[in-house]
Amino acid sequence: MRATVDPERACRLINHGPTVLVSAAHAGRRNLMAAAWSMPVEFAPPRIAVVIDRKTYTRELIAATGMLALCVPCRAQADLVWTVGSVSGHDPELHDTDKFLRYGIGWFDGPALGLPCVEGCVAWMEARVIAEPHTEAAYDTFFVEVVSAQADDRVFADGRWSFRDDNTELHTLHHLGAGVFAVPSRTVAAGLLPVRDA
Amino acid sequence: MRATVDPERACRLINHGPTVLVSAAHAGRRNLMAAAWSMPVEFAPPRIAVVIDRKTYTRELIAATGMLALCVPCRAQADLVWTVGSVSGHDPELHDTDKFLRYGIGWFDGPALGLPCVEGCVAWMEARVIAEPHTEAAYDTFFVEVVSAQADDRVFADGRWSFRDDNTELHTLHHLGAGVFAVPSRTVAAGLLPVRDA
Repeated sequence: MRATVDPERACRLINHGPTVLVSAAHAGRRNLMAAAWSMPVEFAPPRIAVVIDRKTYTRELIAATGMLALCVPCRAQADLVWTVGSVSGHDPELHDTDKFLRYGIGWFDGPALGLPCVEGCVAWMEARVIAEPHTEAAYDTFFVEVVSAQADDRVFADGRWSFRDDNTELHTLHHLGAGVFAVPSRTVAAGLLPVRDA
Repeated sequence: MRATVDPERACRLINHGPTVLVSAAHAGRRNLMAAAWSMPVEFAPPRIAVVIDRKTYTRELIAATGMLALCVPCRAQADLVWTVGSVSGHDPELHDTDKFLRYGIGWFDGPALGLPCVEGCVAWMEARVIAEPHTEAAYDTFFVEVVSAQADDRVFADGRWSFRDDNTELHTLHHLGAGVFAVPSRTVAAGLLPVRDA
């Protein structure tokens, strides 16, 4: 079910603009947040830009380690995404626990960096931060290079998402705002326009 | 039908990761390309990052002027998006014409900068480039600040997309690869997960 994705195809996992989950871990602590704002910047090597607000606890962990995981959640996880995006890892209510335990979120260790990857997602990447202090400070934007990529082969195979009527719960989430997500449940195959006689 | 969008809500236009069209104009020439890779980086002031390959003609025009327009195309325009994304403005076959004339693409002048905005899209923004020579060179990534924003009020109103069964042709396009686009035709409203007894 979880299958390795060729690194050169890793950017396809977020090419269509889904909301992602970002996780990080350091010195026995870990955190998980939602990020609506990410995009590939290069296919090979696979590089991604992602916006991580300076106020987040996840950012502290990333700053300490230079590593993060990006998980692509699916429709069945809409409440999970909204929850981890609404509750801060800085919240004193979390006490000694973390969002994984507080909300019963399953995880597995990423194959390359051992970062916590969320069970039930449809794709998972681990990445190393490429230090760009200026864009991190000016735009909260981190550039990262993907070092491992996996996807659920029921919905991503041969380097391509396959959103069908028989796997709707595995479709990706695209945040419209205020906890409402669009789900790309239909697809359209485009062709080339004819040239006009000018 | 075309309504002004509050600048602080402009980032909502691409928050969910649609493919966009990028246009630019300089000294009597203009061009139009597709970009799957863009994301907001800040709501206020409204700032966006967009990847514009160094080989594109559009990039030359942007470099000359420091301005670009971002249009959000819809399902009815899938062939248009694929066509302008597949044909380079450098192509000698374009001769004295441009992609607008060659393919019969209608446009209007943007209200702030006069840039060519594509008729039939569902949102339009004009933006000024914030000079970031390093990220432009290293990642083809441009940071821009939005100076005008408009949207089709049949599908974007009160700062929010409204994808419904009665406006399917106006839904946005999310590139999966090779000319296949996902269309976010369904939505899901998320709630908060209960806290587990730990």
